[in-house]
Amino acid sequence: MKVIVDLCVVPIGVGVSLSTYVAACEKLLAQSTLVYNLHANGTNIEGEWDAVFAIIKQCHEVIHQMGAPRIFTTLKVGTRIDKTQHMGDKISSVQEKL
Amino acid sequence: MKVIVDLCVVPIGVGVSLSTYVAACEKLLAQSTLVYNLHANGTNIEGEWDAVFAIIKQCHEVIHQMGAPRIFTTLKVGTRIDKTQHMGDKISSVQEKL
Amino acid sequence: MKVIVDLCVVPIGVGVSLSTYVAACEKLLAQSTLVYNLHANGTNIEGEWDAVFAIIKQCHEVIHQMGAPRIFTTLKVGTRIDKTQHMGDKISSVQEKL
Amino acid sequence: MKVIVDLCVVPIGVGVSLSTYVAACEKLLAQSTLVYNLHANGTNIEGEWDAVFAIIKQCHEVIHQMGAPRIFTTLKVGTRIDKTQHMGDKISSVQEKL
Repeated sequence: MKVIVDLCVVPIGVGVSLSTYVAACEKLLAQSTLVYNLHANGTNIEGEWDAVFAIIKQCHEVIHQMGAPRIFTTLKVGTRIDKTQHMGDKISSVQEKL
Repeated sequence: MKVIVDLCVVPIGVGVSLSTYVAACEKLLAQSTLVYNLHANGTNIEGEWDAVFAIIKQCHEVIHQMGAPRIFTTLKVGTRIDKTQHMGDKISSVQEKL
Repeated sequence: MKVIVDLCVVPIGVGVSLSTYVAACEKLLAQSTLVYNLHANGTNIEGEWDAVFAIIKQCHEVIHQMGAPRIFTTLKVGTRIDKTQHMGDKISSVQEKL
Repeated sequence: MKVIVDLCVVPIGVGVSLSTYVAACEKLLAQSTLVYNLHANGTNIEGEWDAVFAIIKQCHEVIHQMGAPRIFTTLKVGTRIDKTQHMGDKISSVQEKL
């Protein structure tokens, strides 16, 4: 089952700047074969369900190892079985209607 | 790693009433050993990371099997390593301050 | 336009315990005429769009006044024009199918 | 109060393709003076709180007028009073740490 996810991790109890922790997740993604794209409020990730959720678990593990006592993550998770759709397709299908 | 999740599944392409699909997820949860609680905008679930995310994947699989071509799910995912906290603790720690 | 919202405020840069800040929001809600219900991952609120979003803005203002330099809030926002539906209806329509 | 929002509208009861409805929101944003950016799982919007939430309300109104009986929207809402931060700053502060 393919999935397109929006991942947004918020470490809690580490002060006001969170970018070092987000960068740690980006590094995990860079080492994977998943397609991903950082945006201003999260990171979109595309791939097989198990591979995507394995990385998300790793993000939590790594951020805790970096010292964050608590993490609050929000996810949007999209699956569909009617057709194959990539992240770029979602954007272009909107842009075609503008 | 323990996790407290808020799960909200929105099947797309099956009309305006979604409760049959949400009920299918509740049945999966009822068959598990996870602690969970249905509320007006989702279901809070508490347990080990792998067990919780296995159920979430099953929810997607079952809802697709029921005929939904597309699913949009939102998740809030909380982990902490500084202390053990259950769902009821989160509510009571707020209520103590009212 | 009636709306049912799930509000979850996460103050950032105030340490690991957030319940004092969540309680401040609950107090704002208690002073309003809105229907609301605290759960383990947020607070469900029901009412007219403008009244609900006015309270959400007030929550941000109050939490900043309490000293939080940064706030990350997640919202689920449901509107429908086909029928009147209250928060309790959403829960019971699922429970009827169990 | 400045806000950076991630807006994701999901019309319910209009079939499986949602891009026409998302495009209607993009048109509202294009007519505004707000800074915004469409991504694969939503649209990031930056501006004054009242202006941003006025547009979000308009999105719901327009999508209902287009025939959607029900809408499920998810929002991430970020405010901060310690410094001025734009959407591009959030991305570059992560990229500097890679």
